[in-house]
Amino acid sequence: MNILLLQSDNLPTPDGGRLTLSGSQARHITQIIRPAEGDQLRVGVLNGLLGMAKVLRIYGPGELELEVTLDTDPPKPLPLTLLLALPRPKVLRRVLQSATTLGVKQIYLLNSYRVDKSYWQTPLLAEEAVHEQLLLGLEQARDTLLPQVHLRQRFKPFVEDELPELVKGKTCFTAHPAPDALPCPSSVKEDSVLAVGPEGGFIQYEVNKLNEAGFETIGLGPRILKVETAIPALVSKLFL
Amino acid sequence: MNILLLQSDNLPTPDGGRLTLSGSQARHITQIIRPAEGDQLRVGVLNGLLGMAKVLRIYGPGELELEVTLDTDPPKPLPLTLLLALPRPKVLRRVLQSATTLGVKQIYLLNSYRVDKSYWQTPLLAEEAVHEQLLLGLEQARDTLLPQVHLRQRFKPFVEDELPELVKGKTCFTAHPAPDALPCPSSVKEDSVLAVGPEGGFIQYEVNKLNEAGFETIGLGPRILKVETAIPALVSKLFL
Repeated sequence: MNILLLQSDNLPTPDGGRLTLSGSQARHITQIIRPAEGDQLRVGVLNGLLGMAKVLRIYGPGELELEVTLDTDPPKPLPLTLLLALPRPKVLRRVLQSATTLGVKQIYLLNSYRVDKSYWQTPLLAEEAVHEQLLLGLEQARDTLLPQVHLRQRFKPFVEDELPELVKGKTCFTAHPAPDALPCPSSVKEDSVLAVGPEGGFIQYEVNKLNEAGFETIGLGPRILKVETAIPALVSKLFL
Repeated sequence: MNILLLQSDNLPTPDGGRLTLSGSQARHITQIIRPAEGDQLRVGVLNGLLGMAKVLRIYGPGELELEVTLDTDPPKPLPLTLLLALPRPKVLRRVLQSATTLGVKQIYLLNSYRVDKSYWQTPLLAEEAVHEQLLLGLEQARDTLLPQVHLRQRFKPFVEDELPELVKGKTCFTAHPAPDALPCPSSVKEDSVLAVGPEGGFIQYEVNKLNEAGFETIGLGPRILKVETAIPALVSKLFL
């Protein structure tokens, strides 16, 4: 955790002010971070500014008073919408975190032929569970802007009915390690959409449907990467 | 698993030939992949060529006969030596796999001030355990060239006594999200060394020691990435 994320409704003004913190966040600070009175902590406000908090008083393990000063914009979001074939639950958790850490703000979790149906039943897709991973990603990245995660359990209606609107004015890529894939471009500045398949890849029908919607097939070379390796590799090459 | 990795001493010639396979690999094929007689499997020989194997006969769950044809070079190694502060065990496993998948062939696991001493005690550092992760990485990437992993439990002697020889003629980078870090370069073709710190980063003393050895500090922007996210992001931006 590289910043402490606060809720804006706890703060007197958008720039900060005095704040008495209790509950799990207070316990985390007093028991894990263990600051002394007078110490400064890096903080951010969810969907707001970054700044510092001075520890004024520690009343006990579950309560402390902070003087919060917010003065810095969070890092710029990536101009990217990620369409991701739903990974298996353990990978989902890590991928939500790492995509958030990298600065992705729009994530569509999508069905695909090679997505095991049981993956849609995981409790990790519950709103609160997803929210928890996103917060961990933000705290890791020192970011405050919460990504939006959309679940799309049917590939064809999504691609045919929703995708045409979603891709308007955007550059669209399908990451697919096919021999005829174009080399992954770099230094992309435009609003973009990146589709990443499941382990085993999109099937040809899915690649074709994405092509019809204006997607170009790109690759990172002959090596087949796992989803959790491919996402940072693609995002970094495309945008960083 | 995207290829089946065979041991060269099982094969009649470097180009392949008939092979009777038994043991755990045979069981994996017959019980997980479940080919029919006549089917083709992608194979590679450890530190050798890639090719195909035709399933000639399945004698039972633990034994089958293959006709192996090897004709393709494995993907090119990255011109990279990775110096990695030893991550905690769970992360170590994933990082060894993903670095292997990305094509890294020289990995130094290094002590650093913020590496917890207990991490050096993990059974995952045993030769066999490391080997297993490397094989998984190769099978994922469709590669055959086994990386070498070196353990260096003392930072200062390594950096002062061994590193000067190791970096000769190479371009050297320390990944460190400092405000004065240079933007991570791209399309690097030269032999390179990349040092990646632990969670929490290298301490300034360590960054200075690497600088003295000729390393340049580079970063991927203001976001702090976890080690397992940073490695694919850095490797991709630098080399892919």
